Formats: sequence, C-alpha cells, structure tokens
Amino acid sequence: MSKGFFITFEGMDGSGKSTQIEILKKRLESNGEDVIFLREPGGTPISEKIREIILDKGNSEMTDVTEMLLYAAARAQLVEEVIAPALRAGRTVICDRFIDSSIAYQAYGRELGDCVSAVNSYALGGIMPDLTILLRSDANLGETRIRDREKDRIEMAPDSFKDRVCRGYELIEKADPDRVVGIDARDTVENISSRIWDEVESRRGEA
Amino acid sequence: MSKGFFITFEGMDGSGKSTQIEILKKRLESNGEDVIFLREPGGTPISEKIREIILDKGNSEMTDVTEMLLYAAARAQLVEEVIAPALRAGRTVICDRFIDSSIAYQAYGRELGDCVSAVNSYALGGIMPDLTILLRSDANLGETRIRDREKDRIEMAPDSFKDRVCRGYELIEKADPDRVVGIDARDTVENISSRIWDEVESRRGEA
Repeated sequence: MSKGFFITFEGMDGSGKSTQIEILKKRLESNGEDVIFLREPGGTPISEKIREIILDKGNSEMTDVTEMLLYAAARAQLVEEVIAPALRAGRTVICDRFIDSSIAYQAYGRELGDCVSAVNSYALGGIMPDLTILLRSDANLGETRIRDREKDRIEMAPDSFKDRVCRGYELIEKADPDRVVGIDARDTVENISSRIWDEVESRRGEA
Repeated sequence: MSKGFFITFEGMDGSGKSTQIEILKKRLESNGEDVIFLREPGGTPISEKIREIILDKGNSEMTDVTEMLLYAAARAQLVEEVIAPALRAGRTVICDRFIDSSIAYQAYGRELGDCVSAVNSYALGGIMPDLTILLRSDANLGETRIRDREKDRIEMAPDSFKDRVCRGYELIEKADPDRVVGIDARDTVENISSRIWDEVESRRGEA
C-alpha cells in the first residue's frame, strides 16, 4: 500500500511561511509532482466556514475553549475529507499550519494546557506530519511584516500572548526534534528555501 | 452567594419539548420570575453562527467528529457567556437541549463513544443541569410530528441512527436518575406539563 508524505509549516504570523510554501510549491510542481497545498483553518468548504467564525473581528466575545474547539473541528474535517485520503493515495500534502499551531496558540498562548492535545487527538484520527518546518522568529519580526495589512482576531492579541506562543513553539521543537525542523526566520529567503528543500528531499527519500 | 437553578429539556425531535418549554415559560413568567430561556445549539451570536454550519443541509460532507466538536464549541460559548453568569446571579435558566443531546446523538447515535463526554467536559466548565426533563418517545412519534416542515441536516439521518439516539437517552436516564426525569411523551400535554411543574417546584424548593 502506498503512503504519502505530509509536510506542515509552522511559525508566528509574519515569519515568512507563505513565501517559503510558494517557493516549495513551484519547485515540486516544476518536477511534475502531484502535490496538495492546504491552509489551516480551512481547506474544505465546511472548514472555511469555521475559519470565518474564528477570524471574524466581530466575534470578540469568543471564549478560549470555543476557539480551541473550532480549530479542532475545522481540522477534523480537513483530515478526514482531504488529508487522509490524499496520503492513502500516496500523494504529498503540504499544510500551512496544523496541530502545532493549536498547541502553540491555544495550549501555550491561551494557556489552556493539556486539554488542547486531548481534544485534538480525536480530530487527527492518527494522522501526524512526517516533517514540520518551524520558522523561528520572535513576536516583533512578525509584527513588522504584517503591519501593512489589517489584522484578524488572532493577530490582534496582546504581546504577552505572542510571547507565550513563541515559547510554545520552542518547546514543541524541543519535544519532537525528529519531526520538527526549526529554521531561523531572519536568514535570507534563499538560504531558508534551500534548507527546506534539503530536508524535504532527504526525508522523502527515506520514507 | 446566590446559586441559580438550571433546567434542561431533552428528547427526540418532535417529542414535544417546545410545547412544554412554552408552557413552563408562561407559568414562570406569570409568577414574575426572572428566567432565561435558551436553545442549543445557539443562544449567543457566536453559537448561532456555529448552529448555521451544523444544521445546513448543504454541509452533507461533515464528519461525525467535526459535528461533535462544533456542538461542543457552541456549548462552551453559551456556558461561559450566558449560563454560568446567570446561575452565579441566582437566576433560573432553562435550555432546550444540552450535554445529554451530545451524549445521545453523538456518543450513541453517531457511535463516537467516550470521546464525546471527554471533549464536553472542557466545554461545560463544571456546569451541569440541576434537573433534566427527558420526554421519552420512540423515533416514530417524532417523525409524525415533524412531517409537516422541512427537515434539517440532523433530522435527515436514517432510522437506525434515531434508534441508537433513543437507546442513548434510555441509558442516560438509567445512569443519572436523580437528575434526569423521564416522562412518556405520548401522555397528554396537560399531564406532562403538570408533572414537569411538580418536579420544578419541589426541586427548586430543595435547592
């Protein structure tokens, strides 16, 4: 039975994930590869509707537990409807944010703790990334890069929240160093993309 | 510190919950009581937006786990934003469906099992009903009563699903007989409302 390869990108807003995903996408596509690109929350019609509720600035009353459960709901739909079938078919799946975002933002940022991984274990259905690229940055680097556009509900959170998210990502990398590859987001776009390509190539070779 | 009283209504669609809630509402209001009436999923702006996604017939691809997480998300918001503050203020809260609907419909109906109560423990924040009125009916009684209007996504589920929900409610009543009062939904509206009134009066007297 064929088994695909699942890559996720993680990091603070503004850490350069979109740029690097775009570069990886072009590189894989120019190789003629059958690759699926997704973003979280979203990636299915139902998950996109959930995304609208999560990010809507009008929903300022949203409780932390509600937010956590909505992210998990959007993820459960994405996993069962798109990611799991694609991996079963042997395809490569690349996702902009996944489970580690919930751990960093909800468990650490919102300080919800262990309930986040408990709830998400039901959403994941046994699927975990084979490789996670973590673009390491501090909260300030992200701030500078998103200054030019309007912030959504999550981006409007205070600095103390962002500091906890940063710290959460550090702990995630430390806890699972085989899966999570941390790369300094302040390096050049070219150096970062070349490091990512090396990781993707060597790990898919092993898989 | 004052402590309110929390009553939930449970049962299959078409078992007569709305009729009985309306009668109880009028009776309490004519006593000049300060009572809050809610329905699940819903009851807050955010929970109502989640409700739209859950019940939309267009969302036929929704996975069982996604559905369960969305109900829990809507409930978490309702508990923290409305129910918990009202109970702390000593008010009486009446809710059309609550945690037992998730156990009956998702744990038993969708056969998701124990993860439903595990996830909902985070949504409830320690709040449980003081009294739950369960209008006992078989799936067929409900079918007859909702025949005249268009069914939503949950009501369109097959009979085998509804049989499991029925059985789930039986088990809930058996597991928690002090809290859950089962009443035969085939009895007359007057007999049922009088039985409900007796339960409400005697239990609030004790509280």
